[in-house]
Amino acid sequence: MDAMADGMTDAAPIVWEHESTLRVRYSETDQMGTFYNSRALEWFECGRTELLRAMGLPYTEIEARGIFLPLVESHVEYLGRARYDDPLQLTTRLRMSGRARARMEVEIINAQTGKPVVRGYTVHVFLDRAGKPVRPPEWFTKRVTPTGQPE
Amino acid sequence: MDAMADGMTDAAPIVWEHESTLRVRYSETDQMGTFYNSRALEWFECGRTELLRAMGLPYTEIEARGIFLPLVESHVEYLGRARYDDPLQLTTRLRMSGRARARMEVEIINAQTGKPVVRGYTVHVFLDRAGKPVRPPEWFTKRVTPTGQPE
Amino acid sequence: MDAMADGMTDAAPIVWEHESTLRVRYSETDQMGTFYNSRALEWFECGRTELLRAMGLPYTEIEARGIFLPLVESHVEYLGRARYDDPLQLTTRLRMSGRARARMEVEIINAQTGKPVVRGYTVHVFLDRAGKPVRPPEWFTKRVTPTGQPE
Amino acid sequence: MDAMADGMTDAAPIVWEHESTLRVRYSETDQMGTFYNSRALEWFECGRTELLRAMGLPYTEIEARGIFLPLVESHVEYLGRARYDDPLQLTTRLRMSGRARARMEVEIINAQTGKPVVRGYTVHVFLDRAGKPVRPPEWFTKRVTPTGQPE
Repeated sequence: MDAMADGMTDAAPIVWEHESTLRVRYSETDQMGTFYNSRALEWFECGRTELLRAMGLPYTEIEARGIFLPLVESHVEYLGRARYDDPLQLTTRLRMSGRARARMEVEIINAQTGKPVVRGYTVHVFLDRAGKPVRPPEWFTKRVTPTGQPE
Repeated sequence: MDAMADGMTDAAPIVWEHESTLRVRYSETDQMGTFYNSRALEWFECGRTELLRAMGLPYTEIEARGIFLPLVESHVEYLGRARYDDPLQLTTRLRMSGRARARMEVEIINAQTGKPVVRGYTVHVFLDRAGKPVRPPEWFTKRVTPTGQPE
Repeated sequence: MDAMADGMTDAAPIVWEHESTLRVRYSETDQMGTFYNSRALEWFECGRTELLRAMGLPYTEIEARGIFLPLVESHVEYLGRARYDDPLQLTTRLRMSGRARARMEVEIINAQTGKPVVRGYTVHVFLDRAGKPVRPPEWFTKRVTPTGQPE
Repeated sequence: MDAMADGMTDAAPIVWEHESTLRVRYSETDQMGTFYNSRALEWFECGRTELLRAMGLPYTEIEARGIFLPLVESHVEYLGRARYDDPLQLTTRLRMSGRARARMEVEIINAQTGKPVVRGYTVHVFLDRAGKPVRPPEWFTKRVTPTGQPE
């Protein structure tokens, strides 16, 4: 299926890309013997956290500066099994979607076999402390312009 | 936005609809003061569980008969806040999507204020005990044909 | 084993007792086919929430009045299996432990079979908004004195 | 308080000790702004998993050999706050408790400040595939005898 057509990506350029790893916890399995479906969104969070840290803007610092990035949308495609203790490799990509949304696309594969596990994305708005939508502040956008990206 | 265009529904008819309720647990909140995003998928599960029970086919019985309904896709739109102990009302709708997929659409509102909280869907395949995709068995499909629905 | 000796109860009188029910969610199972161990503490929370509501002091109201009841200790004994969708019956008992601690003891049984699932307790301190330990306020203690208990 | 008296340790010798680290996930926080209480038990699992791997007996292999180690008891003392993204250091110690129980004691501190976060323990029985309690198999016990420990 065409990736553009199925909504997994959008036309905005990728402004940052980051790889991270984690292992499936026993608490994340269910009685079907693989991970419970909602855990994928928790792993997406791990990918986002590490991407933002790699960008030099840890999410703790973003919140400390008074900006919050709650989700307005999430999408997950379940592509394969992952069992307890399986090592997973996450590739997280950030796009700025329109003027005031950040979109994080995540692909997770089994780090040993290379087999796909899940892929999907989350869309985030920028809110101030009062919960009001705002434009991404300059200290954020200057990190995500093409020249902000390290070689 | 056109509901058809945004993928929240598909053209297949609704074969069952069910309402259920739950309250937000403290464990489901996060430091932003509302529910953590992945909890929506756990609530969707609660909606599915109660819809299947209402259909006369509790999911425990479906698994006991050797059929499993893992997710292949999930989608959530976050529409409003829900805080600890807020009463939520879930409307879950089942569509058969193509020949071998069940699609569960869920809308969650605050049961007191009527304000929307989340909406989304999950898509499920039918697997046998060996993990092989199968057609929905007759004991399932006869429940979800129009005549199977109670008045 | 002597209940007093094993720490499951203490000498303070029970000031409130409440029964509630819930069903095991699929998300709460793990690959061993029963509930994952940490879920017991989430169920204890459900029991506390319903006990406090029954007392006329929903925990939302307690926090709204500026009092927080974080845990300082938890203890769980795992007594039997509970599977997806099993109906559970919780009995929650509140004791005031010393002058400034609330102790919630919980027993969970399978509501159909009567078989024990878990029992345990949590110990809570009273904190103000600044996170400073405080004595239980009068509006709390007057609910939990013997005469406050309804017949 | 005397550690022996309060049940945090028992008289059996420590047969293995392991340190590991993790970071607090956003999904693990709650609206009080620190981690939700049940997450401590999920972190204890992370500590156990890494201790068993360091012993040369990953828990996946233990289950593959037909031995399961479910909890019969857990205990947690909450000693301090841990916020989103805080780095935690876990020290996990294994004792054989009586002939057929493994006891895992865990201490978690903030890896940056050194401040205590939680401490506690879990007690595990050895079950075979049929769910019947068994003695620890020789391939397990030979790892945990004093001579089995590497220098």
